[in-house]
Amino acid sequence: MATHAPETIRFTTDQLELIDQTKLPTQLTYLVCETVEQTHSAIRRLVVRGAPAIGIAAAYGVCLAKSNKHGVPPTKKDYLNAIEYLATSRPTAVNLFWALDRMAEVVESTDDSQLLTALITQARKIHDEDRVMCRAIGRNGASLLSGVDTVLTHCNAGGLATSMWGTALAPIYHLHQTGKRIKVFADETRPLLQGGRLTAWELSQAGVDVTVITDSMAGALMHQGRIGAVIVGADRITAAGDVANKIGTYSVAVLAKHHRLPFYVAAPSNTFDMELVSGDEIPIEQRDRDEVACPHGTRIVPDEANVLNPAFDVTPAELVTAIITEVGVIESPTQQTIESHFADRT
Amino acid sequence: MATHAPETIRFTTDQLELIDQTKLPTQLTYLVCETVEQTHSAIRRLVVRGAPAIGIAAAYGVCLAKSNKHGVPPTKKDYLNAIEYLATSRPTAVNLFWALDRMAEVVESTDDSQLLTALITQARKIHDEDRVMCRAIGRNGASLLSGVDTVLTHCNAGGLATSMWGTALAPIYHLHQTGKRIKVFADETRPLLQGGRLTAWELSQAGVDVTVITDSMAGALMHQGRIGAVIVGADRITAAGDVANKIGTYSVAVLAKHHRLPFYVAAPSNTFDMELVSGDEIPIEQRDRDEVACPHGTRIVPDEANVLNPAFDVTPAELVTAIITEVGVIESPTQQTIESHFADRT
Repeated sequence: MATHAPETIRFTTDQLELIDQTKLPTQLTYLVCETVEQTHSAIRRLVVRGAPAIGIAAAYGVCLAKSNKHGVPPTKKDYLNAIEYLATSRPTAVNLFWALDRMAEVVESTDDSQLLTALITQARKIHDEDRVMCRAIGRNGASLLSGVDTVLTHCNAGGLATSMWGTALAPIYHLHQTGKRIKVFADETRPLLQGGRLTAWELSQAGVDVTVITDSMAGALMHQGRIGAVIVGADRITAAGDVANKIGTYSVAVLAKHHRLPFYVAAPSNTFDMELVSGDEIPIEQRDRDEVACPHGTRIVPDEANVLNPAFDVTPAELVTAIITEVGVIESPTQQTIESHFADRT
Repeated sequence: MATHAPETIRFTTDQLELIDQTKLPTQLTYLVCETVEQTHSAIRRLVVRGAPAIGIAAAYGVCLAKSNKHGVPPTKKDYLNAIEYLATSRPTAVNLFWALDRMAEVVESTDDSQLLTALITQARKIHDEDRVMCRAIGRNGASLLSGVDTVLTHCNAGGLATSMWGTALAPIYHLHQTGKRIKVFADETRPLLQGGRLTAWELSQAGVDVTVITDSMAGALMHQGRIGAVIVGADRITAAGDVANKIGTYSVAVLAKHHRLPFYVAAPSNTFDMELVSGDEIPIEQRDRDEVACPHGTRIVPDEANVLNPAFDVTPAELVTAIITEVGVIESPTQQTIESHFADRT
């Protein structure tokens, strides 16, 4: 998504507008949310998705809280209820809880008469910080990719997953703007095809050379020497550097290790959940069977067969070459290198 | 596919009937072929697929050759033309060429007046041998799986890929018949979903516990200790043991190695192409972009993006724990172990 690409998330004082990502790549339309419930549903249905974008959308969603009593402005209780409800929309991405915590702090610390204004200000701040974060990750990641001609990415950690540029795709946009052409292979990312539908769409809109492959082709391409590095986003990173991200990320990390390719994770520092050490503690969302068994209304798995549909998996830190954050790169992440990285910056 | 399951391939003296595998799992119907051209198209469109089944179907297809001259029986030339044409249907599976070579030998060595009878006899022989092969692979593979509760398979190398029982699934059917319950995870196998559509269908018809996963989930399941072994079929195996099989097989083999799981290939001896040593020499079929970009008529990749769609990849012999054939198991396949395995049996 180039600088002038359509905005993933827009907000006016009384409505939230989201690119309806379930309709891409064939239709570019905005879904309008006027209530907390509509925002919750949009997150749940993946109208908006990607860890940072979920956080931003949820923050704006809080500003849409209504009072139960007609004509009376929402109270602190109403806003806190909205926060609590939005937190139930999706369990894995920690940025959601991080953004809602910031909104809750504003509720707690603000006079009733100023609540809405203060909440909108905070949500816009979260949104603005995300733009700055994307640029910084782009810069920091670009230096790692300087000798690389072709990268593989999984799912969508691009402009559609954030406010702009994304996390995993930010270094590619950064390099593209400076005239360096990087070729991207995009795993289609079954079941919901965020790679084929979204990454391919936003990269080709921006003029980046992108080739879609089925998830099963990544290994063969690496074996043929056609991939220089892997770069993905993250939904949650533990204090020890274990990375929860879209299902299939772990397989790609193992394949990268076997082929001695760098495996980079790009994520803002709010993706770190320092309360968890092991990736086994990260709650993994299990989604509906029909996302696998009946895509776009065509039944492809017989009813008699079982189906698994975890939305995420966890890649252990030892498979991660480096984590690219907006405040620098953490090489060979471990509990120690991560702690000292952030300690140096506080 | 249990013993009494519907037959994948049936032949009467003037028509070939094939389960239309493009319609499964929602419809079980037979496509009738009355000409060589219809048989060629059925193989090309994957109405019938799987290396052994393609060989059988093509052998019967030869028997459908017609003469150009009305009322005159086909000549040797007509049959040889049919053989030559059927050989162009798909490039990778070597069983196709093996079966057609046997049919060509019959044409060369038979009097004109006996041609059709001799060809039908040979095609039925190929078909019968395949049934015996499936049983033998089932027996030979079962001993390898004796300590295993859960296997992962990729694509469909079951009854639908052969005359009955299949290759990779034969040991599972064998054990199932003897009362041992093995749980199967089936990779859905994008783009054409032979795992979700076909493997899940035939295993659940036979009462085997089967769970469909997207191809990207295999690594996470192995990491969680939920897979005991991998077993797949093959479309061509070189003299050195490199294995061409459905795209994605190589990724699964690398994942199995990383998790120290046995990776078994089950294939009849006619899958070996002793004229090739390196897997790099195996021609890999490239299929239409829309199999990836527009599944079941829904466009999921923007037109501006490139797409790759190789039908197969090659797994080097060093990733293969053993090859299970109808004439015994070849452990740690190399050019030497393969040569001595077959030398001992001739």
